[in-house]
Amino acid sequence: MRKIQKPFFIVNPKSYIYGKDIIKLAVIADKLAKKYQVDCIFTGQLIDLPSIKSQTQNLIVMAQTMDELKPGRGMGHVLAEALVEKGVEGVVLNHAEKPLTLSKLDATIKRAHENNLITIVCADTPEQCRAVAELHPDIMICEPTNLIGTGSISNENYVKSTIDAVHSVDKSILIMQAAGVSTADDINKVLLLGADGTGGTSGIIKAESWEDKLNELMSALAKFKRM
Amino acid sequence: MRKIQKPFFIVNPKSYIYGKDIIKLAVIADKLAKKYQVDCIFTGQLIDLPSIKSQTQNLIVMAQTMDELKPGRGMGHVLAEALVEKGVEGVVLNHAEKPLTLSKLDATIKRAHENNLITIVCADTPEQCRAVAELHPDIMICEPTNLIGTGSISNENYVKSTIDAVHSVDKSILIMQAAGVSTADDINKVLLLGADGTGGTSGIIKAESWEDKLNELMSALAKFKRM
Amino acid sequence: MRKIQKPFFIVNPKSYIYGKDIIKLAVIADKLAKKYQVDCIFTGQLIDLPSIKSQTQNLIVMAQTMDELKPGRGMGHVLAEALVEKGVEGVVLNHAEKPLTLSKLDATIKRAHENNLITIVCADTPEQCRAVAELHPDIMICEPTNLIGTGSISNENYVKSTIDAVHSVDKSILIMQAAGVSTADDINKVLLLGADGTGGTSGIIKAESWEDKLNELMSALAKFKRM
Amino acid sequence: MRKIQKPFFIVNPKSYIYGKDIIKLAVIADKLAKKYQVDCIFTGQLIDLPSIKSQTQNLIVMAQTMDELKPGRGMGHVLAEALVEKGVEGVVLNHAEKPLTLSKLDATIKRAHENNLITIVCADTPEQCRAVAELHPDIMICEPTNLIGTGSISNENYVKSTIDAVHSVDKSILIMQAAGVSTADDINKVLLLGADGTGGTSGIIKAESWEDKLNELMSALAKFKRM
Repeated sequence: MRKIQKPFFIVNPKSYIYGKDIIKLAVIADKLAKKYQVDCIFTGQLIDLPSIKSQTQNLIVMAQTMDELKPGRGMGHVLAEALVEKGVEGVVLNHAEKPLTLSKLDATIKRAHENNLITIVCADTPEQCRAVAELHPDIMICEPTNLIGTGSISNENYVKSTIDAVHSVDKSILIMQAAGVSTADDINKVLLLGADGTGGTSGIIKAESWEDKLNELMSALAKFKRM
Repeated sequence: MRKIQKPFFIVNPKSYIYGKDIIKLAVIADKLAKKYQVDCIFTGQLIDLPSIKSQTQNLIVMAQTMDELKPGRGMGHVLAEALVEKGVEGVVLNHAEKPLTLSKLDATIKRAHENNLITIVCADTPEQCRAVAELHPDIMICEPTNLIGTGSISNENYVKSTIDAVHSVDKSILIMQAAGVSTADDINKVLLLGADGTGGTSGIIKAESWEDKLNELMSALAKFKRM
Repeated sequence: MRKIQKPFFIVNPKSYIYGKDIIKLAVIADKLAKKYQVDCIFTGQLIDLPSIKSQTQNLIVMAQTMDELKPGRGMGHVLAEALVEKGVEGVVLNHAEKPLTLSKLDATIKRAHENNLITIVCADTPEQCRAVAELHPDIMICEPTNLIGTGSISNENYVKSTIDAVHSVDKSILIMQAAGVSTADDINKVLLLGADGTGGTSGIIKAESWEDKLNELMSALAKFKRM
Repeated sequence: MRKIQKPFFIVNPKSYIYGKDIIKLAVIADKLAKKYQVDCIFTGQLIDLPSIKSQTQNLIVMAQTMDELKPGRGMGHVLAEALVEKGVEGVVLNHAEKPLTLSKLDATIKRAHENNLITIVCADTPEQCRAVAELHPDIMICEPTNLIGTGSISNENYVKSTIDAVHSVDKSILIMQAAGVSTADDINKVLLLGADGTGGTSGIIKAESWEDKLNELMSALAKFKRM
């Protein structure tokens, strides 16, 4: 499993874009990841991941969900082994738009790790952050569900208390704070408060120029890295 | 909120019995709870809880599930306030046959506690046990999902490692080990291994005589208590 | 199974009220059902149904959801036989706030009918209305999901086309149009357009006086009945 | 949207195989589809569909599930437009291992048709078959849930009554009968009883030689076609 370098970035287009558009965005992110020497995670529709993988060199390509099943019956389920064989390096689990039961989350994290997939698990409240940390994913996204897609970033208290919550359980988990991040200033704020990574969805997708926006965000992240 | 005395017992008829039959079982459990001076939790179909409550004096009556919602919209949901008003004292959450997403589990535990309802939360693996413990329910049922209804009790290693898991997070959580418990010997085994409570479903319901079976189990528990 | 007389009324408090409040509302509805000689369906939290049943004489008491299971394993599930034993006469299924998979809906309707429970099934689009009609529930609620709780009633085209849709499949299904109904005028509109029944939730619960509001609505229904 | 020629065949590997293995199977099916001039639907893990598409010429490649959402928020959801842009021609919905609520099924069929995707919808009982037919998918798979993966084919009565059920609602829907089909004899039986298409999962995947098994099944289908 690849070791992620802090601070790192995520571009998470959810279901906003696909096909040619997502390749266009991935190629920009790929170029900037190289330019700024930043680890950049990139997700997309499952059907788009092979093209993203083949048309970029520097991105850490991840799936947006996965199932716990082993090869066998399971119509429409997402199989760890199938992701790995296409070069996918990790998976995001338990996003508020794709929540899992605790028991499925536990089983799916284990399946991912058996297959050397990096696990990124989302959590909302400090209690949920600690609970997820007990399942020992590699990375966590701490995000107040009610801020998703709003363009408002988490307040200082939320960022600090969720980082404390996760690290009180497992100091080795990398923490992303990404809710509402859309400017270089937001990047600085969350990294200063202790986040290991950040990034976004709507803050990037809805920007007038993807290249300018990613450049703004990733250069801010790189500048912080050198400090 | 009532303080549960250890070791305690649970009679959890799930959906096996209802109506007159569940009242018959509740009355037996009530009599034995008094005789042996044992705290006895008793669950049932929601629609049967008022009768169970009114026809017994000593049982701690609980619901088998609940929802997170506050009074308002929500068709077919189970409201904390409605349980409380009928004298229900707690709720079992996240049973393998009624699993909750982590975020709903977190929210529902908080709703229950706001309403002074005792929370009993089920978990399977040691990792899940620790995760649930971070949400600080009052009681946990540690139960390997694949043993439910089989009549085989959890092995010593499972019982010890899940008790350790929960207590490493929160020593104040009471722990039930109930999978497959159906004899006085089973009761002794799990209590000796450190469980605070135990009880059962099919081991009781399928017995030839409910009274004899409950007497066997609850007297064993009471004897252990006096030691 | 009781035969419902048209036009009929439903009071569906969802999770808005419970305990003493729902008894208060039920007693008012009961009195007016007798006064106006109108069949009145009344739902509530499961735990409140026995009290509602025992403190009223004229209401047709129904559950807000049910599960397909037969007596046996099933923690937190709702059992048909348990409803029947408490005098519940029917169940509402597939409400937008408690949607069922098609296969569970089919199985649950059959379980209800095996137990002589009246089935009321909700549907949204005309296509869904026809699909549900093929499962032959006794009554359907045709309701555009996006109008629930808004206080705006369905437009004439929706009411007519969904009634046509249902009756093109099964003329014996009674049809309720209830979205946003909150005045005597609304009652007249939907009955004139061909609905067999109507009623409401927020339009009643949020009224300043429950008695005045129910009187307004049920007297309008009764007047229409005599025409 | 492509017009499917009857009788047609489906190879539905679910989550049994992926990567190089599924390409191997697809290439065999592709060759035999050409040899026997048979329309052959082929499904797979979403991440494998682009490779399947690029390495075959004759298969009708389909997804195993899809979501109703339009481009936008929706983490881990499957977007119609993303499927279309990669050459996917259709989608299987409501399989017993991926059941949908009636309202999501209705919405997802409409989303698929807006995007010119062929819809194949699964149903179990005759009542469910009629209900699904009212949503007017292009193709239906009638399959008794309890036979999936067993190697036992549906009995004559089930096959006839579900074909009648679907056609009583919409004669234009093509019907597949596939439960337990694993020999040339099974193919003949279901086609003689009126099925428009057939195929399988475990009957193919578990065969000693995929090529021999597919040859046996597809040649039987082709022979029936010429009669």
